[in-house]
Amino acid sequence: MNYTVKRTIMGQLPLGADLLEGLTEIVQREKIRLGRIQAIGATTHAVVAYYDQGTKRYNPMEFPGGMEILSLSGNVSVRDGKPFVHVHVLLGDFQGRVFGGHVLPGTKLFALEVFIDEFEGDPLSRSQDDRTGLFLWTSGQLTEV
Amino acid sequence: MNYTVKRTIMGQLPLGADLLEGLTEIVQREKIRLGRIQAIGATTHAVVAYYDQGTKRYNPMEFPGGMEILSLSGNVSVRDGKPFVHVHVLLGDFQGRVFGGHVLPGTKLFALEVFIDEFEGDPLSRSQDDRTGLFLWTSGQLTEV
Amino acid sequence: MNYTVKRTIMGQLPLGADLLEGLTEIVQREKIRLGRIQAIGATTHAVVAYYDQGTKRYNPMEFPGGMEILSLSGNVSVRDGKPFVHVHVLLGDFQGRVFGGHVLPGTKLFALEVFIDEFEGDPLSRSQDDRTGLFLWTSGQLTEV
Repeated sequence: MNYTVKRTIMGQLPLGADLLEGLTEIVQREKIRLGRIQAIGATTHAVVAYYDQGTKRYNPMEFPGGMEILSLSGNVSVRDGKPFVHVHVLLGDFQGRVFGGHVLPGTKLFALEVFIDEFEGDPLSRSQDDRTGLFLWTSGQLTEV
Repeated sequence: MNYTVKRTIMGQLPLGADLLEGLTEIVQREKIRLGRIQAIGATTHAVVAYYDQGTKRYNPMEFPGGMEILSLSGNVSVRDGKPFVHVHVLLGDFQGRVFGGHVLPGTKLFALEVFIDEFEGDPLSRSQDDRTGLFLWTSGQLTEV
Repeated sequence: MNYTVKRTIMGQLPLGADLLEGLTEIVQREKIRLGRIQAIGATTHAVVAYYDQGTKRYNPMEFPGGMEILSLSGNVSVRDGKPFVHVHVLLGDFQGRVFGGHVLPGTKLFALEVFIDEFEGDPLSRSQDDRTGLFLWTSGQLTEV
């Protein structure tokens, strides 16, 4: 529950990179098992999901064409023994309208300027939670209901 | 004005928790008087406000049903002698449309993955500001107009 | 690519300040050449842009009237030898609707509560990139396509 930042990776992902694959490549190569992600940039094509709490399924949505990444926010933890990226995104169109969701594979970048904080401390691992259907952390509960 | 991070709390809030009460419980229990908050997750019901700069009143709005928390961002400082949470949220619906505002009590969580950075350094305290009507920090002004 | 936080500036910008000028004044005065910015607050008038990837031009848009700053996210690096601020913003209106873009001069604040992390480490400098037309970092590439 208490962590300290070991290092911050700051840099960019290139035109044409897949957002989720790119972030996953970095954290797996750098062996970051616990982290925080923040970024801005732009997409050429975006695929995001809304999690339906009733059916417990992710519903994917596509946003073709150039969009600003107005906020990208999320974390790195462990799933199936490997560093796993979980990020949500907010996208802006040519009229300033905003759309967003849980980032899925298939989101292609025009540019990305990203920060990844790596933490030292006890790992957090995901496994499927019965009540929500989500892959939540098996520890790290901060309050009771 | 210059601070260093003492520790970062990383963890989750459970299904059914009240977002603002949960964050407040953590910072009060952990005696965090100065901090930064960042999170993603989902709500089952959200209550947010728009501050009307003319009337100097918060206008509450409700968003019932499941929404993604696409960004939650804010801070911890001191108000009335106690740790006080101020956060803004962006919510995404099943069509990827986005809504948001200043988080009010009554926002119920489906899940939340949160980072709270605790800072060392001079405290910032809130008191009501005549010109805006907001509870702003009594110090920590970074520029003149 | 690997950085450590040297200090965090936490504080507020006043009613009437220009958002981009205010942030630029802080980073230039404090000689912050590499940093991360995060804020919440409100605007009295906002000017943001959408970057058209086809024409390689920023298209400005104005949002007059009071809006919540639901998220402000970005970075500090070097352009033309000076500290340079690049931030994206999400704005909420009185009905909770959200708009956003790349922040331009002319965005006037009602209030702003901001964090600026200053990093130690190799500088990142911007120069114009042929393929995108953007002023991207000349180093700090984190992956291949």
